[in-house]
Amino acid sequence: MKRLLIDYKGNRYLIDEGRDIHTKYGVVKKEDLAKVKHSGAVKSHLGKDFFVVEPTVVDYVEEMRKPAQVVYPKDSSMIIGLTGIGSGSLVVEAGVGVAGLTMALANAVRPEGKVVSYEIREDHINAASKNLAAMGLSKYSEIKNKSIYDGIDEQNVDMIVLDLGEPWLAIGHALKALKVGGHLVSYSPSVEQVKKFVLALPKDFREVRTIEFILREWEVSSERMRPNTRMIGHTGFLTFARKVC
Amino acid sequence: MKRLLIDYKGNRYLIDEGRDIHTKYGVVKKEDLAKVKHSGAVKSHLGKDFFVVEPTVVDYVEEMRKPAQVVYPKDSSMIIGLTGIGSGSLVVEAGVGVAGLTMALANAVRPEGKVVSYEIREDHINAASKNLAAMGLSKYSEIKNKSIYDGIDEQNVDMIVLDLGEPWLAIGHALKALKVGGHLVSYSPSVEQVKKFVLALPKDFREVRTIEFILREWEVSSERMRPNTRMIGHTGFLTFARKVC
Amino acid sequence: MKRLLIDYKGNRYLIDEGRDIHTKYGVVKKEDLAKVKHSGAVKSHLGKDFFVVEPTVVDYVEEMRKPAQVVYPKDSSMIIGLTGIGSGSLVVEAGVGVAGLTMALANAVRPEGKVVSYEIREDHINAASKNLAAMGLSKYSEIKNKSIYDGIDEQNVDMIVLDLGEPWLAIGHALKALKVGGHLVSYSPSVEQVKKFVLALPKDFREVRTIEFILREWEVSSERMRPNTRMIGHTGFLTFARKVC
Amino acid sequence: MKRLLIDYKGNRYLIDEGRDIHTKYGVVKKEDLAKVKHSGAVKSHLGKDFFVVEPTVVDYVEEMRKPAQVVYPKDSSMIIGLTGIGSGSLVVEAGVGVAGLTMALANAVRPEGKVVSYEIREDHINAASKNLAAMGLSKYSEIKNKSIYDGIDEQNVDMIVLDLGEPWLAIGHALKALKVGGHLVSYSPSVEQVKKFVLALPKDFREVRTIEFILREWEVSSERMRPNTRMIGHTGFLTFARKVC
Repeated sequence: MKRLLIDYKGNRYLIDEGRDIHTKYGVVKKEDLAKVKHSGAVKSHLGKDFFVVEPTVVDYVEEMRKPAQVVYPKDSSMIIGLTGIGSGSLVVEAGVGVAGLTMALANAVRPEGKVVSYEIREDHINAASKNLAAMGLSKYSEIKNKSIYDGIDEQNVDMIVLDLGEPWLAIGHALKALKVGGHLVSYSPSVEQVKKFVLALPKDFREVRTIEFILREWEVSSERMRPNTRMIGHTGFLTFARKVC
Repeated sequence: MKRLLIDYKGNRYLIDEGRDIHTKYGVVKKEDLAKVKHSGAVKSHLGKDFFVVEPTVVDYVEEMRKPAQVVYPKDSSMIIGLTGIGSGSLVVEAGVGVAGLTMALANAVRPEGKVVSYEIREDHINAASKNLAAMGLSKYSEIKNKSIYDGIDEQNVDMIVLDLGEPWLAIGHALKALKVGGHLVSYSPSVEQVKKFVLALPKDFREVRTIEFILREWEVSSERMRPNTRMIGHTGFLTFARKVC
Repeated sequence: MKRLLIDYKGNRYLIDEGRDIHTKYGVVKKEDLAKVKHSGAVKSHLGKDFFVVEPTVVDYVEEMRKPAQVVYPKDSSMIIGLTGIGSGSLVVEAGVGVAGLTMALANAVRPEGKVVSYEIREDHINAASKNLAAMGLSKYSEIKNKSIYDGIDEQNVDMIVLDLGEPWLAIGHALKALKVGGHLVSYSPSVEQVKKFVLALPKDFREVRTIEFILREWEVSSERMRPNTRMIGHTGFLTFARKVC
Repeated sequence: MKRLLIDYKGNRYLIDEGRDIHTKYGVVKKEDLAKVKHSGAVKSHLGKDFFVVEPTVVDYVEEMRKPAQVVYPKDSSMIIGLTGIGSGSLVVEAGVGVAGLTMALANAVRPEGKVVSYEIREDHINAASKNLAAMGLSKYSEIKNKSIYDGIDEQNVDMIVLDLGEPWLAIGHALKALKVGGHLVSYSPSVEQVKKFVLALPKDFREVRTIEFILREWEVSSERMRPNTRMIGHTGFLTFARKVC
């Protein structure tokens, strides 16, 4: 299992157990780390303070290597929160990447639900599997080496999330796989994709809603309080639709 | 249990079972509603199409009466998503209102976790209890008629969420109740509150982060594609902090 | 000439001289108004405080009747400010409406420049002329009852602003009329129009830039400081291009 | 006078006359530049296309060296546009820096108005004077080596703009210097400053309004249309107030 090490300056290190951790504030010994059961404080050989905590899915997503574009935690939070899925939900996802969204979905549907992911790139499948295992989420997840454009095997699905270049090509399959009342969600960086997707939705989908979500970080100190100068201005547009019949 | 009725124009009605529903597009008979098990289509006596679906927590929050200010689904989604809580988490909340946030939290921690809410107003407790029951979430929730300013009974808490006028007064209690690695979250509409809260945090809390989220709705049709003219420009600031030792 | 009357509550009244003004805080007599030369304080017959100031173009635009959609002051400010036009500039505009943008342009190019406006609707021409006269800006403005799609008479133009449904149809005429170094600006509410316009620009135009501009109002008082809950989330997209050869 | 050179890739060079310009796309000879009167095309010795245009104030501000923080063109546009100043206006400014705002103000009030700037740092005065001269704006500007906290010499001022660390200390002087109906504008990066400024305003100032402007750039091409990933999330807050008596 992964652990999250934080130094006294706020730098974060996603670490494996059983290894010495070398940082610019000194070495944190594996024996000292082993003494901290779940979370707690530890000192480096230079006497600097470090803190060990259990990483959340968000910590893991933010710290992991990014060979592929990752759905941002702000967007995965909204996908999960606005559709109301939870333990027991059956979720289908296409476009897995390194499992940034998959991990968040698996955490949301556990212990009684499951996330089934369609992905055609083997390198993504390998990276995603490794990441899910590292967070203890493998048993709530299944990754299929298959294109969602060729069909969806599952039935009575609660939510289908598409992070694809041509999401409109999956609408027909999604309609068959979703339960009545289920949610179809598409994540696209460009408005052109949004338009094609929305215009391709049949009348069986209602409550269609496209949103974008701007996250603004603030600096708060005794001297000044202001939004950060630089920010991420755009990640993607989220379109939600609900199968009603 | 509540059901969500949607007419062919997209109007939504949060309904109880066993009653005829009178709408401007005709009456939807209770017998016809009873025939729809979970979700499905039904017609009014005027022959208009209606759709019945199981309401999510978000549907419920958006449709319920609002005697008190409600934490918006966009903010509750972020609180849950960015802290990574899930089934099994123990969450403490103060400032319940009508349980808008409580329902989202209870949905996120079920079936193995629990939300304990501190609230001093009895009218809020009653409204909140009714809403939680209506969504089948009562067993994951406990509401205490008690001020969080007087202390927190729970130990080893995963997350504490404060929706209070003076959140800084609860920091000392939160520090004792949280597990190491646990999250403290404060929701405040005004930057003054943010400042007082952040400056009052002791060094035991790290990874302090204040953010706001702006949700922008888009209109997408074959003729035009543009953000809506009017929008909610502000709900509140969210401050996250993590107990590290 | 128009005057701007402000009551002690902050309500604004765009008024003509020589008339009693009836408000819910009493009548402000024309004789009292006449005593205030340019700006100053006056009392109603109920003894309430009122203030008279000379209206700016922005005051006028915000208070005037709106039979047509008006370019917002925030957008006209950016069109003028980002292109750097000033006294002496020759500006051509198409889509006059009630002269919301025209007044701002005329104020910017006076006393040595001129704004030539193309408009086909006579009701708009009449309303616009009246508004320009009321602000003393008629001599810096000329309105032609003509479609810009049929050609632009002017030569060596510093800036051309299009507030049209199909701005791409005017690009050829604009290219001929602009001086080298001149600016072409298009204002469109929908991204579809933006795309068609940008893709239709020939290589003679460079430094193409599309922006949108979100204005957020804050509430500032001793008790609280926060963005307003409701805001205008969108007016239009501005596309700037510069003729370089 | 400065000229703006743009290469075929869109890179911009703010240049002086009478010099060869060395770029990575070849040398643009001074003789070739001299042949272009105001604006036009020219080739480098490698045969690459370049374009010469007369720089606007905005071009100049964006390209000039930045030894001091500069008020962004979006903010200076708004200050000018929302107060409606124009030719003939008398404007007082404090906190000149390198004249980013001063140049925009001078351009707006020319030929009949004037900008008087208060600045205590000599290095800023020198840089500002040079920049104003380079844009031909010196005659509409006067820079005083004086702190505005010690008083304002001018009377009957149309607008006073404060870009200061402690703008509230200048309110009393501003009240005396402004004409009735005149505008006081303060630009501050932090909400703390905004609050202190607003709470210090006497009742003689009305129509107090604090705003921030978020400028979002879009990428528009045949393949994709979307907001840029990265953006400037914050520059400063603008507070406007009007002297009414």
